[in-house]
Amino acid sequence: MSLLKLLLGRRLASDEQASHKISLFSGLPALGLDGLSSAAYGPEAALAILLPLGAAGLAYIGPITLVILALLGILYISYRQTIAAYPVNGGSYTVAKENLGVWASLLAAAALMIDYILTVAVGISAGVAAMVSAFPALQHYTVVLCLVVLALITMVNLRGTAEAGVAFALPTYVFIVSLITVLAIGVVRSVLAHGHPAPNVAPAPIGAATTTVGLWLLLRSFASGCTAMTGVEAVSNGVSAFKEPRVQNAHRTLTAIVGILAILLGGIAYLARAYGIAAMDQNNPGYQSVLSQLVGAIVGRGWFYYITMASVLAVLCLSANTSFVDFPRLCRLIAKDDFLPVYFAAIGRRLVYSTGVLFLAAAAGFLLVGFKGITDDLIPLYAVGAFLAFTLSQAGMVMHWRKRLNGTGGSGGEQSRGSAHLKLWINGIGAVATACALSIILIAKFSQGAWITILTIPILLTLFQLVHHHYKLVESAIQCDHCLDLRRNEPPFVLVPVRGWTRPLNKALRLAVSISPDVIGVHLSNLEGDAAEDEAQQMRKEWAVRVEAPARAAGVPAPRLELVQTPYREFVRPMIEQIDRIKAKCPHRLIAVILPELIEKSWLESLLHLHRAMHLRIGLRKRKDLRVVVLDLPWFVEIPHQVSARNHVDAPPANSDAVAALAPSADAGAVGS
Amino acid sequence: MSLLKLLLGRRLASDEQASHKISLFSGLPALGLDGLSSAAYGPEAALAILLPLGAAGLAYIGPITLVILALLGILYISYRQTIAAYPVNGGSYTVAKENLGVWASLLAAAALMIDYILTVAVGISAGVAAMVSAFPALQHYTVVLCLVVLALITMVNLRGTAEAGVAFALPTYVFIVSLITVLAIGVVRSVLAHGHPAPNVAPAPIGAATTTVGLWLLLRSFASGCTAMTGVEAVSNGVSAFKEPRVQNAHRTLTAIVGILAILLGGIAYLARAYGIAAMDQNNPGYQSVLSQLVGAIVGRGWFYYITMASVLAVLCLSANTSFVDFPRLCRLIAKDDFLPVYFAAIGRRLVYSTGVLFLAAAAGFLLVGFKGITDDLIPLYAVGAFLAFTLSQAGMVMHWRKRLNGTGGSGGEQSRGSAHLKLWINGIGAVATACALSIILIAKFSQGAWITILTIPILLTLFQLVHHHYKLVESAIQCDHCLDLRRNEPPFVLVPVRGWTRPLNKALRLAVSISPDVIGVHLSNLEGDAAEDEAQQMRKEWAVRVEAPARAAGVPAPRLELVQTPYREFVRPMIEQIDRIKAKCPHRLIAVILPELIEKSWLESLLHLHRAMHLRIGLRKRKDLRVVVLDLPWFVEIPHQVSARNHVDAPPANSDAVAALAPSADAGAVGS
Repeated sequence: MSLLKLLLGRRLASDEQASHKISLFSGLPALGLDGLSSAAYGPEAALAILLPLGAAGLAYIGPITLVILALLGILYISYRQTIAAYPVNGGSYTVAKENLGVWASLLAAAALMIDYILTVAVGISAGVAAMVSAFPALQHYTVVLCLVVLALITMVNLRGTAEAGVAFALPTYVFIVSLITVLAIGVVRSVLAHGHPAPNVAPAPIGAATTTVGLWLLLRSFASGCTAMTGVEAVSNGVSAFKEPRVQNAHRTLTAIVGILAILLGGIAYLARAYGIAAMDQNNPGYQSVLSQLVGAIVGRGWFYYITMASVLAVLCLSANTSFVDFPRLCRLIAKDDFLPVYFAAIGRRLVYSTGVLFLAAAAGFLLVGFKGITDDLIPLYAVGAFLAFTLSQAGMVMHWRKRLNGTGGSGGEQSRGSAHLKLWINGIGAVATACALSIILIAKFSQGAWITILTIPILLTLFQLVHHHYKLVESAIQCDHCLDLRRNEPPFVLVPVRGWTRPLNKALRLAVSISPDVIGVHLSNLEGDAAEDEAQQMRKEWAVRVEAPARAAGVPAPRLELVQTPYREFVRPMIEQIDRIKAKCPHRLIAVILPELIEKSWLESLLHLHRAMHLRIGLRKRKDLRVVVLDLPWFVEIPHQVSARNHVDAPPANSDAVAALAPSADAGAVGS
Repeated sequence: MSLLKLLLGRRLASDEQASHKISLFSGLPALGLDGLSSAAYGPEAALAILLPLGAAGLAYIGPITLVILALLGILYISYRQTIAAYPVNGGSYTVAKENLGVWASLLAAAALMIDYILTVAVGISAGVAAMVSAFPALQHYTVVLCLVVLALITMVNLRGTAEAGVAFALPTYVFIVSLITVLAIGVVRSVLAHGHPAPNVAPAPIGAATTTVGLWLLLRSFASGCTAMTGVEAVSNGVSAFKEPRVQNAHRTLTAIVGILAILLGGIAYLARAYGIAAMDQNNPGYQSVLSQLVGAIVGRGWFYYITMASVLAVLCLSANTSFVDFPRLCRLIAKDDFLPVYFAAIGRRLVYSTGVLFLAAAAGFLLVGFKGITDDLIPLYAVGAFLAFTLSQAGMVMHWRKRLNGTGGSGGEQSRGSAHLKLWINGIGAVATACALSIILIAKFSQGAWITILTIPILLTLFQLVHHHYKLVESAIQCDHCLDLRRNEPPFVLVPVRGWTRPLNKALRLAVSISPDVIGVHLSNLEGDAAEDEAQQMRKEWAVRVEAPARAAGVPAPRLELVQTPYREFVRPMIEQIDRIKAKCPHRLIAVILPELIEKSWLESLLHLHRAMHLRIGLRKRKDLRVVVLDLPWFVEIPHQVSARNHVDAPPANSDAVAALAPSADAGAVGS
């Protein structure tokens, strides 16, 4: 347990939740990493598609980036409205649920879940790609490095959001400052050199053109570049994590994220063309990411290069963190609506939804291994989910404003109506724009891997439905309309397995006699013929002295002894047969089986016993018998003189005369030894 | 279950044991395979040591075999006496226990256990060596073949002894008949050719001598050759498996085994020299066992060769079967004396001590893998155990006759005394002879691997002692001298966790009320402030209507409701705190916790629930609290209309007026949802 504590930190109480809220400063790393880090792979993904055009391809990155920036602007305005309208939690799931119905919300949920998982996989693989660019010797260990980074992030997130935010702030701000500095230097140099600056370190030479430009190629390039926009929705999902005033803090954070992202995207696109930098194939040795070539070209491979690349690596790896904050919260919302197992809604020791964190880590790890940590292969799966969620969220907002307009009727005043109209239009444009982008992405990337995402969505939807159906079934099965019904409520029939006259049996019979007038001790024997007869006589004699006499003396009904032959040397089956016999006799009573079970200090010691009680419990459970109750009467092995001290219920010796009379024969035969 | 039945056969009742006894005909394969098959590797092991002498070494195999045959004769006479004196079970363990004390018997037990395990490993590896001799292409798969054969033998033995005996009879008799035929042909040819017969298929050429003869080499050759004697004790261990008249049947079987073994050993030694056949290295390609070369030289590589070699293969592999018959019986004897876990004494579904069978298979498999299935590497470990057991058994018999002589005094008559004297001397000579052989084996093979055996023996002895100590501890801990004590025997305090008003809770409260007047429902809430207050009020109101009113109406003490705040969103810890509170209040009563547990049809569905009951059970068990009893109240999920049919205890709706009055608020708030 202390290792767990060391790794995960002390456990937190529910009322500590409030102090773990985030502000603009801590919100930028916690919720913005995903969006900001997209700058590191979005432009590269777009450039990779343009590669067959050779050097001519660079001319098209500018216009494509402009379209992406325009779309980003639309998304920004739309999401500001969403945040204001849903200050508690404005994720696509909630917005779709409240405005478009259950199915749309589940579609959004599935899309978002896939998107979060891919964010983790892409972020980590791109981060490791940055590391490999700086240290080419590491290229061989790509997958291992990915998994190590994943494990670290998972552990940090099991500790809780707030600490994660603080731990991630430094690299985020280093990333922003150093990259903007590099871009500024680059732009100044480029302007001074009339658009043709001389690189400090020459970028990789660009291969010859193998194809000519066409609409299809440009669409694919745009579709890949759209991955730069993923992560923008994170703030609207995480509004509830902000300090008061929530909406304002969330608005400021969103503005900062989108603003910085736009600067980075624009700068990279401009300078890639100015310096003549194209994408390279990550599978080939000597791979350099676009950012690595760009930074090298502008400031050379000095200490600043390494600081910048280190921050890119850190931010890319940590961008996965945004998903680790949002994914469990999303799963919790879905689980609260009974569409995911209840574990996703159960908060852990550090106020984190641990199941969600672990599930996300497992799924991302699976993807990283499956795709060998190659970012370019993961990109086509990506963005489908994000843009599907964008579209559903915007469409939901359109319905939201329409309802508002219909609901308020004329009562809200012209100004409010006009504002709602405007907002409806803004979200409408957002919905159409993201739907268009989604169509392009789907068409352009289908065969490259988007089909995997499209296939996964219905599978997730089916799972949601199965889980939901099951919970509803259980709910109706345990539903109880009437009050406590105490008619015909006799105590249960009690069965106690007897193997010999021992302290555990003594304790079991005390309990049995105290809860029911009908107690039967069951002794199983696999002896036969005379030996069985002798044993039976001895057993009955001992039972009379040890059990029946004290019971009569205490004025309680005496437990009966039942001797059962078991030719197959079994325990479970004959016991169950006894239970069935009693069940048939009293069809309205519960049967309680008291199982005194020896519990050892270690599993090694427990290997030394047959665990009949456990086998009987499993056997009974398999039969799904609603009328049989099992009582676990624990008996712990201790050194003899400690037993009486611990076992308060076991009283000191009494009526020793009767026992003395029994002793000679008991010594010889023992009870059912 | 049906697969298990198919593999292992139907289960047998205890009274079928008598009909599963063996006679001479079935005893020879069941108990003689080990002894007879030794002929296939004993001479080869002796010849392998003589290899450095080149062709000159063959001259020494004759005298060495004569010494071995003499020792075999002494063993035969000794064991006849043992069988007569211990007709129930005359294994070294029993003889040593009754005459030399516990430590000697445990030493014999450890030696025999090791010996049986090695018999399996050596038998199988030598059998596979015979297969490889016939089909050299298989040499690469030696270890795999060994494990497959081991698995087959294990499965046959899990079915039971008698069937195993019948299944193994054919190869045994083919082995005896064909090998004696080959040897007879060889001897006749050799005599006709004046000791220098021409081989049909020339044996492998013998390498040049690399050393000269010395006592050390001859001793090592003798020590290796002694492995030919292992397995002779099997009959004395298995006397109880014989049909009546037991002793006579056992004597006949022992005579047959030793006689045939002697013929085989003598014949092989004579012919190896006559045909000039030396051992080959099993690690080298093209390996041929001595028997393979011999049979090839005498009758050529025709169909008779293949039949003979197939029977050698079969007998060697199946020789392991003797161990599978005896090892579990030995373990059972040790377990009955509390020196091995009780599982070894528990008879399985087919009247077999399955634990012993499986343990033997695991240990032998471990050895086969560890030594890569090379017989020559296993031989040095072997025979140490067997000869240690021989010596202890003979020494025990000496003490047996001495006791007899002292015990009867003059009353037994001179004839009986004289006979006992003679028997004492015979066993005494046997003890000295086997002790000498043991010393030679120990010295000659120590560095080649005998040290492993010597190291294992004290480890086994320590384990025996630890197990014994533990059982004695448990026995004294559960020992109970007094009669059932019913003073101060109040019913237990009953706790029922409450989450909402459900059918399982209804059932749990019915049971609780029926067994005790003191029932507390515990509701845990992690709400805080006003929300908690509202919930508490609602809970109390509902409890009054649903539980307290019906209890009063039925005239039983009403269960109380306890509301507990749990800031850490836990279940187990607050429940345990409640239990501790009650324990402190009534120090002399048991606390019963009723846990209504939802049990799903499949593990997949059970993943959908939190299993609080299970966690509480584990938590309570960890605390080793002797005063807490857990009642498992199973609740199986069914389609609603089936529930009432199965759950006989759950009665139809009653007092619906009160519920109707409660409905609106209950609908809104629900109990502790």
